[in-house]
Amino acid sequence: MDDATRVHRRFNPLNGRWVLVSPHRTQRPWQGQLEAPDALALPAHDAACFLCPGNTRANGAVNPHYSGPWVFENDFAALAPGPLSWAADAPAADALLLAEPVSGTCRVMCFSPNHALTLPELSAAELRAVIDTWAEQSAELGKHHAWVQVFENKGAAMGCSNPHPHGQIWASAHVPDEPAVEDARQHAYFERNGRAMLADLAAREAGGLRVVIENERWLVIVPFWAVWPFETLVLPRFSVQRLEQLAPGDRDSLGAVLSELTARYDNLFGCSFPYSMGWHGAPYTPGNQAHWQLHAHFFPPLLRSASVRKFMVGYEMLAEAQRDLTAEQAAERLRATSPIHYRKAGR
Amino acid sequence: MDDATRVHRRFNPLNGRWVLVSPHRTQRPWQGQLEAPDALALPAHDAACFLCPGNTRANGAVNPHYSGPWVFENDFAALAPGPLSWAADAPAADALLLAEPVSGTCRVMCFSPNHALTLPELSAAELRAVIDTWAEQSAELGKHHAWVQVFENKGAAMGCSNPHPHGQIWASAHVPDEPAVEDARQHAYFERNGRAMLADLAAREAGGLRVVIENERWLVIVPFWAVWPFETLVLPRFSVQRLEQLAPGDRDSLGAVLSELTARYDNLFGCSFPYSMGWHGAPYTPGNQAHWQLHAHFFPPLLRSASVRKFMVGYEMLAEAQRDLTAEQAAERLRATSPIHYRKAGR
Ligand SMILES: O=P(O)(O)O[C@H]1O[C@H](CO)[C@@H](O)[C@H](O)[C@H]1O
Ligand SMILES: O=P(O)(O)O[C@H]1O[C@H](CO)[C@@H](O)[C@H](O)[C@H]1O
Repeated sequence: MDDATRVHRRFNPLNGRWVLVSPHRTQRPWQGQLEAPDALALPAHDAACFLCPGNTRANGAVNPHYSGPWVFENDFAALAPGPLSWAADAPAADALLLAEPVSGTCRVMCFSPNHALTLPELSAAELRAVIDTWAEQSAELGKHHAWVQVFENKGAAMGCSNPHPHGQIWASAHVPDEPAVEDARQHAYFERNGRAMLADLAAREAGGLRVVIENERWLVIVPFWAVWPFETLVLPRFSVQRLEQLAPGDRDSLGAVLSELTARYDNLFGCSFPYSMGWHGAPYTPGNQAHWQLHAHFFPPLLRSASVRKFMVGYEMLAEAQRDLTAEQAAERLRATSPIHYRKAGR
Repeated sequence: MDDATRVHRRFNPLNGRWVLVSPHRTQRPWQGQLEAPDALALPAHDAACFLCPGNTRANGAVNPHYSGPWVFENDFAALAPGPLSWAADAPAADALLLAEPVSGTCRVMCFSPNHALTLPELSAAELRAVIDTWAEQSAELGKHHAWVQVFENKGAAMGCSNPHPHGQIWASAHVPDEPAVEDARQHAYFERNGRAMLADLAAREAGGLRVVIENERWLVIVPFWAVWPFETLVLPRFSVQRLEQLAPGDRDSLGAVLSELTARYDNLFGCSFPYSMGWHGAPYTPGNQAHWQLHAHFFPPLLRSASVRKFMVGYEMLAEAQRDLTAEQAAERLRATSPIHYRKAGR
């Protein structure tokens, strides 16, 4: 048995966590839960959808007849504006029972008025409009929040309750856990090496075994330390800290890359591929952000087919993340799929 | 709005992570994925089950006619014994692409020969036998491994592929991520305060708002920093580092507590309640372990009903854990359920 096929663990320098890699574990039989793949043929407008143009939402608000991306405040927000201190009579915080107030806002962003489309089916101009809206929202919310989290939960398997193409933007006065760790680790790397960690990584990975898509401006890899079976990392090949700093040409190029990546995902198992994805740009905190490189994470749960997912459960929750194939095997499979979406290919 | 109903975040001193608490978010409508509750009426023996006594497994091995808990090596192990160094020609590790070999073993542990039972339906003697086997396995595997992870994935929603009552034991030469962090943080607390963190916590929480079950020897709380909706922490009320150190009386007392906890869970939504649970005892590394208190974590995914779970997706993966009710609300609901399992209550 050579080292690549032996059980081993790999280290994620961005968040400091390890993942246990068990290369041959996909061969075990699966008798567990099967996912119901998302419905394929949806109407362009669904009268029951609370995101379609002109429809009425659960709280009585009526959606405008929007034609491009459209953003509104989440009707059931997990974050809300509020003072950043407790009332005077609040219990004193201590080392065992420590809490702090939070202030923030949650927005929903429809990618398209068309209920039936997903990212790989948008035109280049439509995808460009999505990227422009992400950038505008980040810049606007970044004025009054330390962190702006742009993300998309896609598919019922990822807790998405509506197939209408949409994402979310949650902004907060505090920098949450995961980006705070990424910030500290990128900063330490920069101090030690004088270069940004993810710039070094992109230079190192270009042309290599873990590349899924590569153009002049962008690189998509299955990171060496991927946890989810077909997890990817979208990296710029130039220095950039935040979405709103992307030049027009970089945005068009990014649109092409995201279109191809999501098409390859759908083609892998011939289904609308569920995932959670999101952007990590530099926090909107004072100081130099040269250590930070803008990047996007895609975390898709499917493992073997449209209906068999990876469960991050017992051992993963209690001990350490664990995966059933190597990052290199996953990248190879994604490269072997067609870059043309299967629903477009027949047209 | 008082502070308890405001959005806030809480800190977990055991692993150093925060959770965003949004007390009123369970009121939003849910149109997303529904879980299929696990089948209620199972036969005591299922000829198609690879864990029932006398049956043949996928790899051709035949199960013995066991009558109590039964342990065997996992046929599709994620961890395997192996040398703890790479072959001489392996690529050199570096800061960006760092990997290390792993050695370990994975075992499956059937709790009962009866296919139809779950923990709350076992007798006191049967539960005691389960606890004794956990303790024996920990002691045995701890002789040659730094970490022994005893855990149970229960229910299809937690990636369990077989309803036969069983758990797993994964042992490794290295201390995995999560216990390594718990170890460091308990150690730092002990250095600072001269007492174990979880002993202080048990003293602090006894008789309080977050208690679900309390007897002379054990305490079950929804921890202040719970992430999963009905997450609980099982704490001893005496100093103990590992399962095998539990005295006979402590084990019987623990059995009663686990029986009641799992009965309350099932009663909450009137279904076989899915969860992942597992034990964290002191690592089998050299040195004094006085800072470590043995404890068990229960991570159940259900949020509102037998079919509506919490999804830890986009924001949670990219930014910070988030929950939709407070720990105090969850504890109150668990206390309000009957301690007698609904399937026993009718008998
Ligand atoms: O070993 P099992 O029960 O087949 O598998 C289950 O538990 C493992 C340990 O938590 C996970 O890695 C798997 O994703 C899950 O399906
Ligand atoms: O806001 P949504 O789409 O209703 O909810 C979904 O995304 C949120 C943010 O990741 C999660 O907290 C929820 O558990 C999930 O169901």
